Amino acid sequence: MNSRIRWLRNQLTSLDLEGMIVSNPINVKYLTGLDEEGTFVITPKENIFITDSRYTESVNRHLTLDDEIVVFNMNEMSKYDYEGIFMTNESVGFEENYVTYAEYMKMLQRYQVELTETEGLIENQRVIKDEDEIESIKKACKITDDAFEHIKKFIKLGMTEKEVAFEIDKYMVTHGAESTSFDTIVAFLENASMPHAVPSDRRLRSKDMIQLDFGCKVNGYCSDFSRVIFIDEIDDKMKEVYDFVLEEQMKIADGLKDGANIKTVIKDRETDYKLENETIMHSFGHGVGLEIHESPILRARQDCIIKENTIIAIEPGVYYPNNFGIRIEDTYIVKRDGCRPLTTSSKDYTVIKLS
Amino acid sequence: MNSRIRWLRNQLTSLDLEGMIVSNPINVKYLTGLDEEGTFVITPKENIFITDSRYTESVNRHLTLDDEIVVFNMNEMSKYDYEGIFMTNESVGFEENYVTYAEYMKMLQRYQVELTETEGLIENQRVIKDEDEIESIKKACKITDDAFEHIKKFIKLGMTEKEVAFEIDKYMVTHGAESTSFDTIVAFLENASMPHAVPSDRRLRSKDMIQLDFGCKVNGYCSDFSRVIFIDEIDDKMKEVYDFVLEEQMKIADGLKDGANIKTVIKDRETDYKLENETIMHSFGHGVGLEIHESPILRARQDCIIKENTIIAIEPGVYYPNNFGIRIEDTYIVKRDGCRPLTTSSKDYTVIKLS
Repeated sequence: MNSRIRWLRNQLTSLDLEGMIVSNPINVKYLTGLDEEGTFVITPKENIFITDSRYTESVNRHLTLDDEIVVFNMNEMSKYDYEGIFMTNESVGFEENYVTYAEYMKMLQRYQVELTETEGLIENQRVIKDEDEIESIKKACKITDDAFEHIKKFIKLGMTEKEVAFEIDKYMVTHGAESTSFDTIVAFLENASMPHAVPSDRRLRSKDMIQLDFGCKVNGYCSDFSRVIFIDEIDDKMKEVYDFVLEEQMKIADGLKDGANIKTVIKDRETDYKLENETIMHSFGHGVGLEIHESPILRARQDCIIKENTIIAIEPGVYYPNNFGIRIEDTYIVKRDGCRPLTTSSKDYTVIKLS
Repeated sequence: MNSRIRWLRNQLTSLDLEGMIVSNPINVKYLTGLDEEGTFVITPKENIFITDSRYTESVNRHLTLDDEIVVFNMNEMSKYDYEGIFMTNESVGFEENYVTYAEYMKMLQRYQVELTETEGLIENQRVIKDEDEIESIKKACKITDDAFEHIKKFIKLGMTEKEVAFEIDKYMVTHGAESTSFDTIVAFLENASMPHAVPSDRRLRSKDMIQLDFGCKVNGYCSDFSRVIFIDEIDDKMKEVYDFVLEEQMKIADGLKDGANIKTVIKDRETDYKLENETIMHSFGHGVGLEIHESPILRARQDCIIKENTIIAIEPGVYYPNNFGIRIEDTYIVKRDGCRPLTTSSKDYTVIKLS
């Protein structure tokens, strides 16, 4: 049995829970290493992975005896098999933030137990990364930085946002990434005023600016990264906004050291935004790991101490509707003296002459 | 107000519900055309889209007065604003198959109403497609067929599954698709025995077979398609399995005419499988639309009459662990005399000489 499952079993004991039903596939992967669809059930006696005929072959290829995980095929399970999983009808943990209301009602009936909310038990454990996890994220960050270098040479006037986005995706996937970690954002000038712009057929023109936001996955672990490219020239207003955003990012990265409270660090940033009359359109960042958005969220209401080896994306941004927007983002690792960037592309003004 | 929202309002009245909280983004898109994150709330007086600062600009660009949808920014909403949305604390519909248990508890508290399960009310309405929806799916199917033609010329010995998958994705996205409709499957020989194989670095060799399964989206609507390519030659066992699978697909397509019961059609297929001593590893197909897997599912326990203009993917498959597998799949439209294929690539044996 691996250390993560052993840790969870100890937690369940101290929470007075007879076991736990883990449904969130990301948590299942974290605990078991399995990518296949299924439910991971911890009982006093056993660790059970309940899957279906589509996945039994592939699950059996991946698991070894050392995993101490029993595989059940749900296509062969009766009502009584489910009821027999837990010995008593005592309290069993479930993931209230993942399980739908309908699934909750079905689980109650199926397992005949009392279900107790676990309040992000596994998600909270996932915040601090071990060496292997950090190594995977570093690899994803390296591919991401390389993709940025590549795209700077690739862009030409007349290209569409879609074409640029596709080239970024292709570069990452053909250079060691399993996949992108989210839908790549490429937004030219006026489209950059929307933080979640979707690449369109808008063509690149002289004096545009480009907002890029992308990342990739290695061993299931994500990177997250945003940069701005100025085409042909950079005007004074954009320069000013760029400087402001970059300074905010650096202040957050300095502030978020092991033991710091997120609330304190972010409150100061909100004050900066107010002084500049800027609106805060989204959080200042978020944890990164098996999911692109994980705990903690960098918001002033997050009264939470950050710890060493937390991986976070810091991404302040400023947006002017129908005009332009600027966001700078890097994936960082939290250390005792502040955050160290894992994406390391230059943050000097990137101006590319294309005319 | 569009006809879909008007339809839903009528349904709610006849179900004796004061309104409905629509959280599933696919249902929100179906009703409003909006892609942005948010909750669509129908009250006796108004249609409200509750979003946040990240999306207000883009939502306001998309909506017109004719939509009769009021936009609320949740960042500016108080406890009292939420409580004031519904006039009384009577029964309001919600999506029990989408909303998590935690969200359900939060909604109860936030809106101060009684929440009632709606049992896939909107999903069931989405099953039968209108002309615009069929047009979008046809376009997606055409791009999918073209991608198959393209990939037949592209493959070479020594290429990896990942490289072939990426070329398919690139072709579709650069030929009019918004995106793929799911992660493209490319599986060589022994990997094809897993219905949900993930493309790997396995290289193509002489005498391999290739299982392809892919599709794309146009205007949010999906296509779904699977074909098999035999490299250099096709052996007798594979031929036999191919013939069996193709015949099963044709029998289902003939059987599923307007007014047919899915249960009856599929039960006969299960009998065929038993006669051949084959295991049924997954359903025989599924509805296709804004989601790649929609209602109805083609299973023997689906006691349900299929209707004209339902769009379904029919995908029988046979799998031999660690050896090979064969699945044939097309997207069809249900008509009065049976199913008409919208993906129209040839289903003769595709043998490509590469040695």
